[in-house]
Amino acid sequence: MRIDGRKNEQIRQVNIIRNYNKYAEGSVLIESGNTRVICTASIEDKVPIFLKGKGEGWITCEYSMIPRATQIRKIRDAVRGKIDGRTMEIQRLIGRSLRSVVDMKALGEKTIWIDCDVIQADGGTRTTSITGAFIALVDAVNSLHKKKSFKVYPIRNFVSAISVGIVNGDKMLDLCYQEDSNASVDMNIVMTDEEEYIEIQGTGEKNPFSKKDFNELLELAEKGIKNVISIQKGVLKNDCLWIGTGEEIG
Amino acid sequence: MRIDGRKNEQIRQVNIIRNYNKYAEGSVLIESGNTRVICTASIEDKVPIFLKGKGEGWITCEYSMIPRATQIRKIRDAVRGKIDGRTMEIQRLIGRSLRSVVDMKALGEKTIWIDCDVIQADGGTRTTSITGAFIALVDAVNSLHKKKSFKVYPIRNFVSAISVGIVNGDKMLDLCYQEDSNASVDMNIVMTDEEEYIEIQGTGEKNPFSKKDFNELLELAEKGIKNVISIQKGVLKNDCLWIGTGEEIG
Amino acid sequence: MRIDGRKNEQIRQVNIIRNYNKYAEGSVLIESGNTRVICTASIEDKVPIFLKGKGEGWITCEYSMIPRATQIRKIRDAVRGKIDGRTMEIQRLIGRSLRSVVDMKALGEKTIWIDCDVIQADGGTRTTSITGAFIALVDAVNSLHKKKSFKVYPIRNFVSAISVGIVNGDKMLDLCYQEDSNASVDMNIVMTDEEEYIEIQGTGEKNPFSKKDFNELLELAEKGIKNVISIQKGVLKNDCLWIGTGEEIG
Amino acid sequence: MRIDGRKNEQIRQVNIIRNYNKYAEGSVLIESGNTRVICTASIEDKVPIFLKGKGEGWITCEYSMIPRATQIRKIRDAVRGKIDGRTMEIQRLIGRSLRSVVDMKALGEKTIWIDCDVIQADGGTRTTSITGAFIALVDAVNSLHKKKSFKVYPIRNFVSAISVGIVNGDKMLDLCYQEDSNASVDMNIVMTDEEEYIEIQGTGEKNPFSKKDFNELLELAEKGIKNVISIQKGVLKNDCLWIGTGEEIG
Amino acid sequence: MRIDGRKNEQIRQVNIIRNYNKYAEGSVLIESGNTRVICTASIEDKVPIFLKGKGEGWITCEYSMIPRATQIRKIRDAVRGKIDGRTMEIQRLIGRSLRSVVDMKALGEKTIWIDCDVIQADGGTRTTSITGAFIALVDAVNSLHKKKSFKVYPIRNFVSAISVGIVNGDKMLDLCYQEDSNASVDMNIVMTDEEEYIEIQGTGEKNPFSKKDFNELLELAEKGIKNVISIQKGVLKNDCLWIGTGEEIG
Amino acid sequence: MRIDGRKNEQIRQVNIIRNYNKYAEGSVLIESGNTRVICTASIEDKVPIFLKGKGEGWITCEYSMIPRATQIRKIRDAVRGKIDGRTMEIQRLIGRSLRSVVDMKALGEKTIWIDCDVIQADGGTRTTSITGAFIALVDAVNSLHKKKSFKVYPIRNFVSAISVGIVNGDKMLDLCYQEDSNASVDMNIVMTDEEEYIEIQGTGEKNPFSKKDFNELLELAEKGIKNVISIQKGVLKNDCLWIGTGEEIG
Repeated sequence: MRIDGRKNEQIRQVNIIRNYNKYAEGSVLIESGNTRVICTASIEDKVPIFLKGKGEGWITCEYSMIPRATQIRKIRDAVRGKIDGRTMEIQRLIGRSLRSVVDMKALGEKTIWIDCDVIQADGGTRTTSITGAFIALVDAVNSLHKKKSFKVYPIRNFVSAISVGIVNGDKMLDLCYQEDSNASVDMNIVMTDEEEYIEIQGTGEKNPFSKKDFNELLELAEKGIKNVISIQKGVLKNDCLWIGTGEEIG
Repeated sequence: MRIDGRKNEQIRQVNIIRNYNKYAEGSVLIESGNTRVICTASIEDKVPIFLKGKGEGWITCEYSMIPRATQIRKIRDAVRGKIDGRTMEIQRLIGRSLRSVVDMKALGEKTIWIDCDVIQADGGTRTTSITGAFIALVDAVNSLHKKKSFKVYPIRNFVSAISVGIVNGDKMLDLCYQEDSNASVDMNIVMTDEEEYIEIQGTGEKNPFSKKDFNELLELAEKGIKNVISIQKGVLKNDCLWIGTGEEIG
Repeated sequence: MRIDGRKNEQIRQVNIIRNYNKYAEGSVLIESGNTRVICTASIEDKVPIFLKGKGEGWITCEYSMIPRATQIRKIRDAVRGKIDGRTMEIQRLIGRSLRSVVDMKALGEKTIWIDCDVIQADGGTRTTSITGAFIALVDAVNSLHKKKSFKVYPIRNFVSAISVGIVNGDKMLDLCYQEDSNASVDMNIVMTDEEEYIEIQGTGEKNPFSKKDFNELLELAEKGIKNVISIQKGVLKNDCLWIGTGEEIG
Repeated sequence: MRIDGRKNEQIRQVNIIRNYNKYAEGSVLIESGNTRVICTASIEDKVPIFLKGKGEGWITCEYSMIPRATQIRKIRDAVRGKIDGRTMEIQRLIGRSLRSVVDMKALGEKTIWIDCDVIQADGGTRTTSITGAFIALVDAVNSLHKKKSFKVYPIRNFVSAISVGIVNGDKMLDLCYQEDSNASVDMNIVMTDEEEYIEIQGTGEKNPFSKKDFNELLELAEKGIKNVISIQKGVLKNDCLWIGTGEEIG
Repeated sequence: MRIDGRKNEQIRQVNIIRNYNKYAEGSVLIESGNTRVICTASIEDKVPIFLKGKGEGWITCEYSMIPRATQIRKIRDAVRGKIDGRTMEIQRLIGRSLRSVVDMKALGEKTIWIDCDVIQADGGTRTTSITGAFIALVDAVNSLHKKKSFKVYPIRNFVSAISVGIVNGDKMLDLCYQEDSNASVDMNIVMTDEEEYIEIQGTGEKNPFSKKDFNELLELAEKGIKNVISIQKGVLKNDCLWIGTGEEIG
Repeated sequence: MRIDGRKNEQIRQVNIIRNYNKYAEGSVLIESGNTRVICTASIEDKVPIFLKGKGEGWITCEYSMIPRATQIRKIRDAVRGKIDGRTMEIQRLIGRSLRSVVDMKALGEKTIWIDCDVIQADGGTRTTSITGAFIALVDAVNSLHKKKSFKVYPIRNFVSAISVGIVNGDKMLDLCYQEDSNASVDMNIVMTDEEEYIEIQGTGEKNPFSKKDFNELLELAEKGIKNVISIQKGVLKNDCLWIGTGEEIG
C-alpha cells in the first residue's frame, strides 16, 4: 500500500474544470491528487520571427509555481531575476509535447501560448500540466474552428503524460511528491492515444537501472496514460470529435 | 444602473474560501466579482537584516498576476527580468496595510510572507488582495497562537480595502475593470474596523477633483469597507475573537 | 518650535535657479531647505508605442538620487541592476501629476522626459521634484511655443506638491527628513492653482488616523501649496502668462 | 551511406587529449568528428549550502559554446544577460550523469566543478561533453587520490553517452549536426560500463514513435556506448584501475 | 583660435566649491568650462572581502552622468539594467588614479567611496572627475585626521588629470566635447605634483600617431597638469599641508 | 634571468594555427607562452544602427575567458549576469585597435565580429588577442576579397600588441602572469608595422613613474612588436600581400 492508499499501478484522482478563466481562449483547472495547475491557452495572431512568412503556426509554453505551491515557500523567479533550470526544462517539455500532435501548417500563422501555473504541487506537476494543457489547447483550437479559421483541423492526436518510478524497490505509477523524493529511478512519459511515444525521460541519478526495469516501468506508464486519456475524452465529450480526423473542413 | 447591474453604492459579491492551500499557514481564494486572488501567508522564523536582534517581527508582501489573468496576455515579470512599477506599488501598499494593524513586538522575531497571486483580474485586485490577505494573516497568526508562540495576541484591528471613483460623472463603489478604465478620479481606501484610515490614495490623472467630490467618495468608501469587514467577520467566525483584545495570553 | 526653527504651518525656504543645464529644453536646480533636486525637461519628437498615431503627446518621469544624497551612502540602482520600489512609486507619481495639467492633444505627438535627480535629500524629495519639474516643464513647453509648435497652449494649470504629517502628536507642514522619520501619519498632496486635488496619498503605517486628523492635515497642505505656487509664479514671471488661457494661438 | 561516409551503426572518430589545461585538476580536449569540447574538472574545498555538514561531496556542471562554435555566430549568454533553456538542460544532464557514478560520501565535502566549453559544434555536443568530462573527472579524482584524500575510491563506474535517431527512415548512431536537424526521432542515452542506463531522453517532436522503433534505437545506442567506453579505457590506461573497486584505501 | 576662444595650450576655467554636500565626508562641485561634476568621498568602516584582515584600506570609484548631462538625453544605466563599457573604464581609471597616491597601510581598514556624478558634460569628464575627486578625498581624509584616526598621513601626492589631442592637425590641451569628437588622436594623462605619471592613455583610433607627436602631446599635458595642481593647492589652502609629509602623527 | 628563463627583452614563443575553426570566415588558435586564445572573425551583412546607410563597415570585439583559464576557477559572466569591467575594457581595446587599421568605407556595409576566447591565461591575454585577431581578420577580409566584395583592399596596416613593465626594478618585455602581478608599472602598447602607435596604456597604480622610465619601456615595446609583426608575416605568407597597397582592385 502506498502512502496515500493507492495501489502501485493506480493513478491519482483527476479533476478537470474547463473554462476556468473568463479571458483565455482555452483554460482549465486540473487537479491530480493534491497537485493543482491552472492551464490557459491564449491565441496570438502572429508567429515568432524564425517562422515569419512560412505559413506555419507555433505553440509555446511557460510554466511557473506560485511561491507557496510547495511545502517550503520558494522565491519567485521574478525576484531572483531569472528562470531556474528546472522550470526551463519543464516548459520546453510541455511545448514540445503539444507541438508534436499539432499540424502547424493547418494551424496557420498563429501562436498559441500555453501557461501552466502550479498553485499546489504534490509531484507530477509537469505531467499534470501536459494533460491539462491539452484540454486548454483543444478549447482554444475549437474557438478558431468556430470562426472557420482553418481548412484542416490541426490537432492530430490526444496527448497525455504520466510519471513512473522505482520507490523502495517497488515500481509505482503517478508518484506523489514524497514518493518522487525517495525514487531511485524516475521517469516521465508522454504518449498519444495511438500508443506512440512523444517523449521518454528516464533518470537514474541515485541508481543506474537495467533494461528489464526500464521495460516494466514503460508498461506501467502506458497503463496510466490510457487511463488519463480516457479521462480527457470524458471531459471533452463532443468537443474532441474533430481530433485526428484530418478531414478538410468546409 | 452599472454595467454589471449594481447600484453605485453596491460592492460586488465576495466569496472567500479559507485553507485553499494545504501547505501555507494561512491561505484563501478570494473572489470579488470576477476578480480572483489566491492569498497565502507563510511564516518564517527569521527577520530581515534591518530588524535582527530587535525582538520585532515583520510582514512583507509579494503580488503578481498569472499571464492570462487579464484580457490580453501579459508577459511574465520573470521573463522581462524585472518587476514593473505597478506591481511594486501594489505589493508595498498591501505590506504597509497589514503591518499597520499588527503589533510587531508581540509577533516577535518572525517574518510573515504574504503572497497575492491574481488568477483573474477584473478591477480592484489590490483592494481584494488586502481583504483576502488579512484572512490568510489571521489564520497564520492563529497557527502560532495555537503553539503559544506569543504572550500578547498581535493583531489589533481588522483591515479591509475598497476602491471608489468617478465614472462618467457618477460616484461609484468597488469599480470593475471597465469602470476603472473610464474613471476620471480613482481612489483606493484602506481602513480598520474602527473607521480609521490606514491609507488613502486618490488620483485625478484625467481630472483634478474638488474637496466636495473627495469627501463624497470617502463616505462611499467607508460604507463599502464596513460591508467588507462584516463579510470578513462572517468568514472568520470564532477565529477572530482574539483580534484587538490585546490581552496577555497565558 | 520645530528642529529647524520653523513653525508647524511654515514651509522651508525654496530657491529655484532656472536654466541650470545648458542642453535641456527646460531645467532647474530647486532647493527646499536642504533638499536639492536637478529637474530637466527634454523634448523628444516621438511618443511611446501605445500612443503612436493618436495625435497625443506624453510626459514621463525618471527619478533618482546620487549615492551620497543621503546620510548613509545608498548603493546605485545601476549597480543593484534594478530600480527599487520607492523610486518607481515616486517617478510614477511625478509623471501622473504633470500629465494631469497638460492637454496631450494640444501638445501633439511629442514626449517630454522629466528627470529629477536628487543631489541632496532632507525630506520632501518627491514634492520638491514635482514643484521644480513643473518649472522645467513650462520652460520646455515655452521653447516649443516659440517655434509655434502648437495651436493651443497645452498647460492648463499650475501644479505643486507638499508633504504634511503628524509628528509627536503635532500636525506639521513640509517635513524634513528627521520629522518624516518620526511621523505617525505621513501625507503627500499634489494640487493645482485652482485648489483642486491631483493626488492625495496618506499613510498611517504606524498609526491609523481619524477623519478629523485627516481633514486638518489637508487644510495645512492647502496652505503650503498656495505658498509654493506663489513662489513658482514669482520665478516664472511673464513666462507663465499662457498657462490656463486655453486660447487658440495664431 | 551517411553524409560523412559512415555506416548507420558507426560512431565518429574520437580523439581525447588529456591534461589540455595546465591549471585544472583534470582537463581534456575531446573531439568527436568535428565536435570539439574542452572539459575541465576543478576541485573546490567546500560544498553548496544544502549539503553543508552532511559529509558528502557534490559535482556540478556548466556548459557553454563559444559564439562561433556554430555555423551562424550565436550571441553570448553573458551579453543576453541570461542562460538559455537548452544550455540549462544540457548542463543539468551532464551533472546528473556524472553524479550517478560517484559515491558522494566517499568523495567527502568537496565540490567538483565540471566545465564543458564547446569550441566547435557538429552535433552530439552533450554526449561528447559527458564522455570527455568523465575523463577529466577521473583525473581530478586521481589527483585527490594521490593526496590520500579519501578512504574509498569514489568513482563506481565508467559513464559515457551517445545519440541515436531516425533520419529519413534510417536508424543512425551518433548523429552529426545535419543528421540531427533532419531527425524525426532524436535520443540521447547515458550508460555505464555495466550496461545500465543512467539517462534515457527520447523526443519525437516531429513524429511520435513506436515501441519497436524505440527498442531498436536503444540497441543501437548500446553498441555505440560500448565502443566509446573502450576508447575511454584506452585513454585512461592504468589511471582507471581503481574505478569500481570500492576497496578501502590504506 | 579654438571654438571657445582659447589658445591651444590653454586649459578651461576651473571652479571648485568645497563642501557642496552636507552629508559626505568630502565633497566638491567642480566646473571645468561647461563640464560640471559633483564628487563626493564617503568613508565606510570596512574593506572589501579580498582585503579583510590585511590592515589596509581601499579606495573605489563610481561614475555616472545624469541623463541630460549631454546634448542628447542618455538612457539611465539603471533602466538599461547594466553599466556601459565607457562608464566602467572611467570609474576604474579614477579609482586607480586616487589609489596610486594613497598609502593604504597608513589609511587602515577603511573604504573610501568616490562618487563622480556628471551633471553637465562638455568633454573631459574623466579628467575633471579625477581633479575634483582628489579634493573630496583630501577633505574626507582630513576628517579622519581630525579624529586622529591614523599615525601616518596617508596621502603622498597631489594627483590631477588633463586631456590632450590632435584636432584638425593642431595639438590642443583640455579638449571640449566638440574638439574631442573631431580629434584624430586623444590622450588622457594623470600625473602627480612631482611630475611623475600615474596613467597614460593614448588612442589613435582614427589615425595611428608617431612618437614625435606623442611626445609633444605629453609635454602639453604636463603644462596643463601643473596649472590644475596649482588650482587644487589654491582651493585647499592650509588643508593640504600634510600631503606628502609622511611624518608620523602624534 | 626571468622565471621562465627568458631575457628581459625577449618575447615568449608564439604559435599560430590558422583556420582553427571550420565555420568562421577567419580563425586562429594563438599561443604566446602558456597563454592560449581562440580568435574568430565572423562576417555579418549588416551594420549597427548608428552606421546604417552610411556606406561604412564596422568591426567589434567580444572577449571572454573560459572559467578554468586561470589558476583559480572564475565564475562565468553569464552566471553573474553581467560582464565585468576588465572584460569590457579589453574588448573595447581590441575593437579599437583593429578598426584603426581598416578603411571602413572600403569594407562597405558589413560588420566583422571578432571573438577572442581565452582558453588558458598566463599574462598578456589582451595583447595576444590583438595579435591573433589580426590574423583572423585578414583571413576573413581575404574571404571577401575572393568574392570581389570590394574595390579597394580595406586593411591598411599590420597591427600587433605587446606588454612591458617594471618588475622588481627591471624593465621587462611580454610579462607572464606572475611578472604582471608583481609589476610596479604595467603598459600595453598597440602599434602598426610602420612604427606608429595605435594605443598606449601605461598604469603606475603601485608607483608613479618617470618620463625616463616611460621612454625606456616604450623602446622595449617597439622591439617586441617588430618581432611579433614578423611572426604574423611569416604565418600569413602570401595572404598578406594586399595589406597597405590601397590599390583599386579589378
